[in-house]
Amino acid sequence: MKKLKLGMMGGGIGAFIGDAHRRASRITNDYTLVGGVFDVDFERAKEFATKEDLDLSRCYATIDDFIAGELALPAEERIEVVSIVTPNFLHYQFAKKLIENGFHVVCEKPMTTTIEEAEDLERLVDEKNVVFCLTHTYTGYPMIRQMRELIKSGELGTIQRVDAQYYQGWINSIIHGADSRITGIWRLDPKHAGISSCMGDIGVHAFNLIEYTTGLEVKEILADLSTVKEDVVLDLDGTVLLRFDDKLKGIVRASQVCAGEENNLTIAVYGSKASLKWSQEDPNYLYVISDSEPTKVYKPAHAYNSTFAEESHVMPAGHPEGIYEAFGNLYKGAAMAIRGEEIVDGQFPTVKDGVRGMRFIHTVVASNKEGNCWKSL
Amino acid sequence: MKKLKLGMMGGGIGAFIGDAHRRASRITNDYTLVGGVFDVDFERAKEFATKEDLDLSRCYATIDDFIAGELALPAEERIEVVSIVTPNFLHYQFAKKLIENGFHVVCEKPMTTTIEEAEDLERLVDEKNVVFCLTHTYTGYPMIRQMRELIKSGELGTIQRVDAQYYQGWINSIIHGADSRITGIWRLDPKHAGISSCMGDIGVHAFNLIEYTTGLEVKEILADLSTVKEDVVLDLDGTVLLRFDDKLKGIVRASQVCAGEENNLTIAVYGSKASLKWSQEDPNYLYVISDSEPTKVYKPAHAYNSTFAEESHVMPAGHPEGIYEAFGNLYKGAAMAIRGEEIVDGQFPTVKDGVRGMRFIHTVVASNKEGNCWKSL
Amino acid sequence: MKKLKLGMMGGGIGAFIGDAHRRASRITNDYTLVGGVFDVDFERAKEFATKEDLDLSRCYATIDDFIAGELALPAEERIEVVSIVTPNFLHYQFAKKLIENGFHVVCEKPMTTTIEEAEDLERLVDEKNVVFCLTHTYTGYPMIRQMRELIKSGELGTIQRVDAQYYQGWINSIIHGADSRITGIWRLDPKHAGISSCMGDIGVHAFNLIEYTTGLEVKEILADLSTVKEDVVLDLDGTVLLRFDDKLKGIVRASQVCAGEENNLTIAVYGSKASLKWSQEDPNYLYVISDSEPTKVYKPAHAYNSTFAEESHVMPAGHPEGIYEAFGNLYKGAAMAIRGEEIVDGQFPTVKDGVRGMRFIHTVVASNKEGNCWKSL
Amino acid sequence: MKKLKLGMMGGGIGAFIGDAHRRASRITNDYTLVGGVFDVDFERAKEFATKEDLDLSRCYATIDDFIAGELALPAEERIEVVSIVTPNFLHYQFAKKLIENGFHVVCEKPMTTTIEEAEDLERLVDEKNVVFCLTHTYTGYPMIRQMRELIKSGELGTIQRVDAQYYQGWINSIIHGADSRITGIWRLDPKHAGISSCMGDIGVHAFNLIEYTTGLEVKEILADLSTVKEDVVLDLDGTVLLRFDDKLKGIVRASQVCAGEENNLTIAVYGSKASLKWSQEDPNYLYVISDSEPTKVYKPAHAYNSTFAEESHVMPAGHPEGIYEAFGNLYKGAAMAIRGEEIVDGQFPTVKDGVRGMRFIHTVVASNKEGNCWKSL
Repeated sequence: MKKLKLGMMGGGIGAFIGDAHRRASRITNDYTLVGGVFDVDFERAKEFATKEDLDLSRCYATIDDFIAGELALPAEERIEVVSIVTPNFLHYQFAKKLIENGFHVVCEKPMTTTIEEAEDLERLVDEKNVVFCLTHTYTGYPMIRQMRELIKSGELGTIQRVDAQYYQGWINSIIHGADSRITGIWRLDPKHAGISSCMGDIGVHAFNLIEYTTGLEVKEILADLSTVKEDVVLDLDGTVLLRFDDKLKGIVRASQVCAGEENNLTIAVYGSKASLKWSQEDPNYLYVISDSEPTKVYKPAHAYNSTFAEESHVMPAGHPEGIYEAFGNLYKGAAMAIRGEEIVDGQFPTVKDGVRGMRFIHTVVASNKEGNCWKSL
Repeated sequence: MKKLKLGMMGGGIGAFIGDAHRRASRITNDYTLVGGVFDVDFERAKEFATKEDLDLSRCYATIDDFIAGELALPAEERIEVVSIVTPNFLHYQFAKKLIENGFHVVCEKPMTTTIEEAEDLERLVDEKNVVFCLTHTYTGYPMIRQMRELIKSGELGTIQRVDAQYYQGWINSIIHGADSRITGIWRLDPKHAGISSCMGDIGVHAFNLIEYTTGLEVKEILADLSTVKEDVVLDLDGTVLLRFDDKLKGIVRASQVCAGEENNLTIAVYGSKASLKWSQEDPNYLYVISDSEPTKVYKPAHAYNSTFAEESHVMPAGHPEGIYEAFGNLYKGAAMAIRGEEIVDGQFPTVKDGVRGMRFIHTVVASNKEGNCWKSL
Repeated sequence: MKKLKLGMMGGGIGAFIGDAHRRASRITNDYTLVGGVFDVDFERAKEFATKEDLDLSRCYATIDDFIAGELALPAEERIEVVSIVTPNFLHYQFAKKLIENGFHVVCEKPMTTTIEEAEDLERLVDEKNVVFCLTHTYTGYPMIRQMRELIKSGELGTIQRVDAQYYQGWINSIIHGADSRITGIWRLDPKHAGISSCMGDIGVHAFNLIEYTTGLEVKEILADLSTVKEDVVLDLDGTVLLRFDDKLKGIVRASQVCAGEENNLTIAVYGSKASLKWSQEDPNYLYVISDSEPTKVYKPAHAYNSTFAEESHVMPAGHPEGIYEAFGNLYKGAAMAIRGEEIVDGQFPTVKDGVRGMRFIHTVVASNKEGNCWKSL
Repeated sequence: MKKLKLGMMGGGIGAFIGDAHRRASRITNDYTLVGGVFDVDFERAKEFATKEDLDLSRCYATIDDFIAGELALPAEERIEVVSIVTPNFLHYQFAKKLIENGFHVVCEKPMTTTIEEAEDLERLVDEKNVVFCLTHTYTGYPMIRQMRELIKSGELGTIQRVDAQYYQGWINSIIHGADSRITGIWRLDPKHAGISSCMGDIGVHAFNLIEYTTGLEVKEILADLSTVKEDVVLDLDGTVLLRFDDKLKGIVRASQVCAGEENNLTIAVYGSKASLKWSQEDPNYLYVISDSEPTKVYKPAHAYNSTFAEESHVMPAGHPEGIYEAFGNLYKGAAMAIRGEEIVDGQFPTVKDGVRGMRFIHTVVASNKEGNCWKSL
């Protein structure tokens, strides 16, 4: 089978997230990196392309050059799908131009910087009928997919509480460092990071996992955020109360100042009959607990899992796959969609998840600013 | 050494909590059960006394009989300390009478039903100079005590986030049972349980552990409670946002409807330099995490622990002690205080912890009722 | 109910194991300590009795005084059951005299120092029809009892492999200590410890758990032991290959020089249909694994457990009980037997387990000495 | 940088292990698959090449065609390194021809079927000065590499015991299946699997990890193997006692009939000062235990790790990498060696590890056959 021709916006020399996307795209064997706009510094971009052993004619200085250059090629040679891994504030404008010109898009999160931009992309994707994959990577884990399927099957009874946590600690070394490097880190600077640090970067992942696994929509939120330190202007820590329909409540807890926490994303969905618990740092274990039966531990590569979960894991049981394979599952899903293969609901996060995420971030910040009041999402 | 003569209010035939108190009192070898008012039904009380092989002359029909009878005895024969394990609404009146008559008291929680009663007991204990031990059992675990000592020593740097959880699921079987036994369970009936179910019964334990381990006082709270089901009037689930001085925030999460959760009480205290995590179901492990060093796992029976933690564990390393031994540690501390031995701050929860607990419960209910607003504690 | 009158041989001031037996006896509320021969130094024995607030007339200088004194008392005042917690080499002679005089016995392990002594006690117990409880404490854990019941029920299919481990590290500090205190520790001195250190002290526990949980008898063993260091004469480390009937094999691994291991006793029984795994340091978790179903985690206080397991735990689910409660379960079982109540097979280890243990230790040492050959057990 | 041109022997349609090698080679971005001898059925081989979008002129019918075809090409177009993923019995003859013709080799284990063949390859690799990487995949895990570095640094003091386990259960479904498919599975047929099933397939991995992490050589072994069932001729289960120099002993335990075990490979190295424990199913945790300090848990992506361990992990802390990334680390190491970059000792398993492995397997089988006697390795 022909590999899909992949382009990339950003992700040049030294760009961690670009490297992660490329690894993910290679794992599945569905893509070949062909070209892109790898850096604002064109010389560095070409240096990168050379290092990657790419055809330099496909290394472009600007997105307009990219679009013009690729559209000038015969359709069968043209880059078909483009990964956007630029700084956040460029996501929208790059995605917009690519979609308008018929390219499929794989976009890093956050999708945009405003709700309006997000809704605009949603409209465009629909209009242009392209595939748009937003890389909420954690939705690619087999046991998250099994969680979604178990909930969908009604195994939990009525859902009664949802609790998601995303705790990290790495910002401590920045805000408490000897040289007080606060201004030096783009993530703490609103000009680059947008209106939120903790909720925008990680809280939104927890929120996304809740809606992804339960299939439910959060209706209202109340947020309490903290900047932790005098000279910080963005939230580094916070709690968000959630209300769904009726009597179901939930919570998102997130922090970037929990010293010693690495990437501690967890989700628990509690039902009237049974409950499910999962933790990102040990992703191959899904705990099903109930009041009447022994705790059951689901693991990948077993016939008792749903087809969707099983198709998201390759190795035999007991051979742990990790974050790159989860990431690869999103790229795989996008490839299936681009090729017109049958996909299931939830195969990869879409532009709609991006809209929900932007609503979450903006509403959380507003609730906090207005004195921790309830606001509709 | 002479054993302390122990009396008991309530705790007769079939009373689980009375049995737990007696086991705890026996573990430490400091007490002998002598008599009490074991049941409102005096015949059943005597039946219990017989079963326990007690002197029936020390089995009383009422608390007034008890006080009169014991005070009539020579001081060296008299019951010195009394455990109160009656239904909650009787705690206050029994404690009041006992303290006024010079008895030391070990009291089940919740200490009273109102803040005013709690403050009255606080005043009385001070006035009568008796020992008053409130059985917040979890403070008796060696690793909780080590946690308190590590925080006191400044190991964490500035505390930046506190997160305590207490999740259970057992009420599901009641509210969703075939016969809808809601009215049949006293814990769901405000006449017996007081103004709160989830927060009053378990949320307050999580709150207590936060103040116990950090040595800090919560200043303000915002609560969001849920009755979960139409025909329930008390909270079965909720989240409480906490504010301490300055920029420190925290959270208490509690629920009685998390199907499959047994007694999942956890506490995490996050600092600028390091953090501590503990879970009641695996009480002999204390996790110290930091951004720069490997995670350290503290266990009991090691020279690296504080004296207080070490004195709270008997067996050599690797021989797990449990909830009864934690409970016994409170009884041990009360015995030390009664005998005038030197005790440390935190040796057992006192009437002051009872006052804080009642404030917590009442303020949480008020915040929820008034639309999830911030209220001083 | 009248409490059983308990005597004790050894266990005076500073004796750790005596304290453990007394705590265990108190937990169940079936015994009252009345007297004994607490120390070879009679003054210290009386000091201990005073500290315990005992009647000094029941504090004896020798076992012969004890027997004479107690038999002179009216039957209803007499000590009925005696715990033997002396140094190992005295177990046999004390047990023999006590049994011959009609006392029930609770005996620390190892039961004797030779197989012949063990068989002699077995004969005597049978002849005198007394209750004899050998404190292989780990058989008192609820989940070990559940393991036994699950195996008995055939849940595992054909058992195909058994693997028990008992690793400790505490002897390292002795053999590698600055002052080379090897001669100072009685456990390394054959005069006091007998013919084996590692296998005699801990390996035999692993062996006992295998026969206790599976209900099978080991037929042949091959042992490879190590003294680890030049100047040590007893085994501190070793591996024992086991053969049962037919094609079933197993293994006992034990060591006292695994630096950092505390009391790491584990047992795994592997069957053709499912397998069971348990670890002493986390005793409230029993893992049932199979190739076709999710791993199941059994915990105490659930209706899915066997009656025997459930009767070995008091607290509600999620309240961890520990080693003292397991120990108490043996004392409870002995009390039931002494009172003529109905007991189940496996309620407590008996003199027969003591005979098996002595056979194990002696055969292991012989196999090792004779060049790691197979020997019948 | 130019990618290395990769060939493959075997690994065509439906070959799991071929897919795993290709994924591993793609992860690191150092290789491009160019051609090979993918199948004995040339039509299927071409079908595979088409599916992979390869140039069909590089798809060969036989290894001789492959060698002739590639050597006829200009050096800069020629395949430089070849992965051998054929059935085991072909490894030797393919490796021999490739090495003799100057190709670098990545070879699946077991390297050969006899010790003599293994030694012959060792001689050839030395003579032809090619890179030979044997895919003992587990040596690619960052925490195994950290384990090796910690031991090398002397952190453990004197090593006193080594214990490695490799338990699986998947063969149960074959030997106990309804249709008794024993003859149907090539792994149980000596003609294809060689002289050993359990030890040859998985026991040798445990042995390899012991020598890899400790840097020590096993001198003597005593093995006890089991065929488990009447009609099975190869070992499915066994225990191997190990002796190193002096007083150090160790053990390899392996089984394919432990129902419910997935891929439970563990290694523990016990020293006089500290010990290390690791488990393949949770590969990102390395436990350092000692008698005097809290247990330390090492994880990847931390400055406290050795350079070698850190260079074997890409993602930030808390983002779990898995088996494919470990596999990729071997391919990465081979690429570094082929390019003449500086590598460290242990960067990938070599032909010497293959010789050790074959010695292990053959000596184990001999020891078992000759009555469980000690044999030199």
